[in-house]
Amino acid sequence: MGVSVDIDPSLVERRILDLARHGACFDTGVWRTVYSAEWVAATDQYAAWCADAGLEVRRDAVGNVWGRLAGTEPGGSIVSGSHIDSQKPGGRYDGALGSIGGLVAIEALFRRFGRPKRTLEALAFCEEEGSRFPSANFWGSRAVTRAVRQGDAETMRGYEDETMADAMRAVGLDPARIPEAGRDDIDVFVELHIEQGPVLEQAGKPVAVVDAITGMRHYHVTLTGEQNHAGAFPMDLRRDPMAGFAEIAGGVIDTAHRMGRPAVTTVGRVSADPNYPAIVPRTVRFTVDARHPDPAMRALLYARHEALMREVAARRGLDISWEILVDHAPCLSDPALVRTFEDAARRQDIPFLTMASGAGHDSQQMAEIARVVMLFVRSKDGRSHTPEEFSSLDDIVAGIRVLAAGLHDLAY
Amino acid sequence: MGVSVDIDPSLVERRILDLARHGACFDTGVWRTVYSAEWVAATDQYAAWCADAGLEVRRDAVGNVWGRLAGTEPGGSIVSGSHIDSQKPGGRYDGALGSIGGLVAIEALFRRFGRPKRTLEALAFCEEEGSRFPSANFWGSRAVTRAVRQGDAETMRGYEDETMADAMRAVGLDPARIPEAGRDDIDVFVELHIEQGPVLEQAGKPVAVVDAITGMRHYHVTLTGEQNHAGAFPMDLRRDPMAGFAEIAGGVIDTAHRMGRPAVTTVGRVSADPNYPAIVPRTVRFTVDARHPDPAMRALLYARHEALMREVAARRGLDISWEILVDHAPCLSDPALVRTFEDAARRQDIPFLTMASGAGHDSQQMAEIARVVMLFVRSKDGRSHTPEEFSSLDDIVAGIRVLAAGLHDLAY
Repeated sequence: MGVSVDIDPSLVERRILDLARHGACFDTGVWRTVYSAEWVAATDQYAAWCADAGLEVRRDAVGNVWGRLAGTEPGGSIVSGSHIDSQKPGGRYDGALGSIGGLVAIEALFRRFGRPKRTLEALAFCEEEGSRFPSANFWGSRAVTRAVRQGDAETMRGYEDETMADAMRAVGLDPARIPEAGRDDIDVFVELHIEQGPVLEQAGKPVAVVDAITGMRHYHVTLTGEQNHAGAFPMDLRRDPMAGFAEIAGGVIDTAHRMGRPAVTTVGRVSADPNYPAIVPRTVRFTVDARHPDPAMRALLYARHEALMREVAARRGLDISWEILVDHAPCLSDPALVRTFEDAARRQDIPFLTMASGAGHDSQQMAEIARVVMLFVRSKDGRSHTPEEFSSLDDIVAGIRVLAAGLHDLAY
Repeated sequence: MGVSVDIDPSLVERRILDLARHGACFDTGVWRTVYSAEWVAATDQYAAWCADAGLEVRRDAVGNVWGRLAGTEPGGSIVSGSHIDSQKPGGRYDGALGSIGGLVAIEALFRRFGRPKRTLEALAFCEEEGSRFPSANFWGSRAVTRAVRQGDAETMRGYEDETMADAMRAVGLDPARIPEAGRDDIDVFVELHIEQGPVLEQAGKPVAVVDAITGMRHYHVTLTGEQNHAGAFPMDLRRDPMAGFAEIAGGVIDTAHRMGRPAVTTVGRVSADPNYPAIVPRTVRFTVDARHPDPAMRALLYARHEALMREVAARRGLDISWEILVDHAPCLSDPALVRTFEDAARRQDIPFLTMASGAGHDSQQMAEIARVVMLFVRSKDGRSHTPEEFSSLDDIVAGIRVLAAGLHDLAY
């Protein structure tokens, strides 16, 4: 127990750049949606690396790629990885870094310490971003936890109106076999990921151990009033959904701000109908994304948002309705795992924070069937989901060293 | 002087329904943008009616249709009409009613009183709504007042990116000849129009004499902050243009409301970039339409809006810029003409209000070369720019009777 692990920076850098070639765009960007040609090439590359490292390679029924290093003793697997798909465009690090990191860590442990007692597995999930199928909703990890329901692949549609089932068939996967991706033998899932926010950069630390993933909900709201001429209709007689939207958007953003970190609320999407300068619109549609990792505070945040929306609509004589299309409970990391990885950082003199994740991750799905923990690597300017996302090689190597040392503690 | 004029309701109704067939949509709607096939058919119909009424028909260089009844004595023309194009979709009355009304009134006067002393002209302007070319900005009446500059038609672009010049050529008009549409011999322009607001309905009157057209301005605003992940970026570090937009939209609407009638401000158009639920947008673009008929109050309204926009952007660390794409000074009706048409209503026992127009109209362009006045007809629920706009036949006939009696006073 208690080893320090060296990681070869040049290997890590080469793998990041090689994987980023599949779907490369805008100099430093990646455009690699699930089941696209770029995605096929990237998973082939990942499988080849796993095989080169001496791991048993398996592609499951949804196209997740697993690299297995069998342990000498019984017990559930200890798995590390992340997703291999990207935003449109995303960068080189979101998802890819955790897939590479899990493999590099296990490869380093295998070379230096030989076969582990407990089985270790590196993993590249097929899909997490929802960038091709907006309702895929952690497709890769949900297949592993058996959360994909029969028929989902036939009804789920992409931005181009294709079905998930057709997209699977196009890359040689049979949607009828999705249940075969289910696993019951995983003990631990550890996901390395870029932070995607500015907290580590502000704190001056390269790495974080993540003790919770925030709970999040997406409200898709429709606010309807009365369409009128912008000049001829007195202000006092209007039922203007844009005025109601302004009050609601400002209000929910202010509510999260006043609640303080780590509460966050975002109004990211808005459309008016009609959408002309000289017409008071009939309808304004918008989204409210609200997140908090603490179950009680989360409930309070949502209740305040809903009360505000109802009150503004009622007071302004507007009709309001909403659908909740995404709703994830907070996911707490396993406390023992948090301590394991905190120790792994501390003994290697790697400065770290312990913090919650404000973004959703595959780990919260995996928590249904395994103990989970995450590691974050500092993001430059807190950027992600853009070609400009960047983490330094030093920080990345620090993160993989924490990952590898913690995996050693668990598996050897 | 001082006649009362009868108008045949069935003729008026038939003409409204017949003209509405060109571009008919959504049961009671009209979709008739300038220089479209529907527009060509409507102008052909209008020209045929003018000819049937014994008027000399002329189509000018931009496609305005004139029906002339030459007077027996010299003097500038007395013209009545409105525009023949529509919103997308609009209704059967906005613009069409004034084109028909001018013709029906002159036709009735010709039949009953014979040739006038002063020349009377019925008119259908080609374009007023900006529904195909957002910067056309009273294309028809500006051609008549020589306010269209050389080259405008080549640079002006429509929503489909076509140029105005190409659109003109497609219906057989030569953009080089636009100056020939200019007129220097118009003494009076009278425009009958639906109110497009609820003021007459609230007051229980069928007709208004309009003593001013409001001043209006369109700001096209771009508010730019920093694009971030909706979960991972703390509220206190965001530079969120949606939060700034919410504050500005709510603020400008409230400013006009507090200033009181007839101040109006509308935020009718908004778009976010990117426009995804889980991304804090980089940029929000929106319009502010602000109007007041009093020159001093108008200046105050604009100054308050601009101060608010600058203050919100500066306080939130956002970049703001705007273009003013529409800017019309208030337009006062000729006081003698206001009295003429008030008298015409009074002596026919037609209840009326004298009020300002909150909407812009061709009359404000025509005021550059002629004395102008407008008449309003009550709108059901104050609706316009929608298939549901409606004015009753009784109210319409009342409006045309006021128009015809006033034209008689001026021309016979």
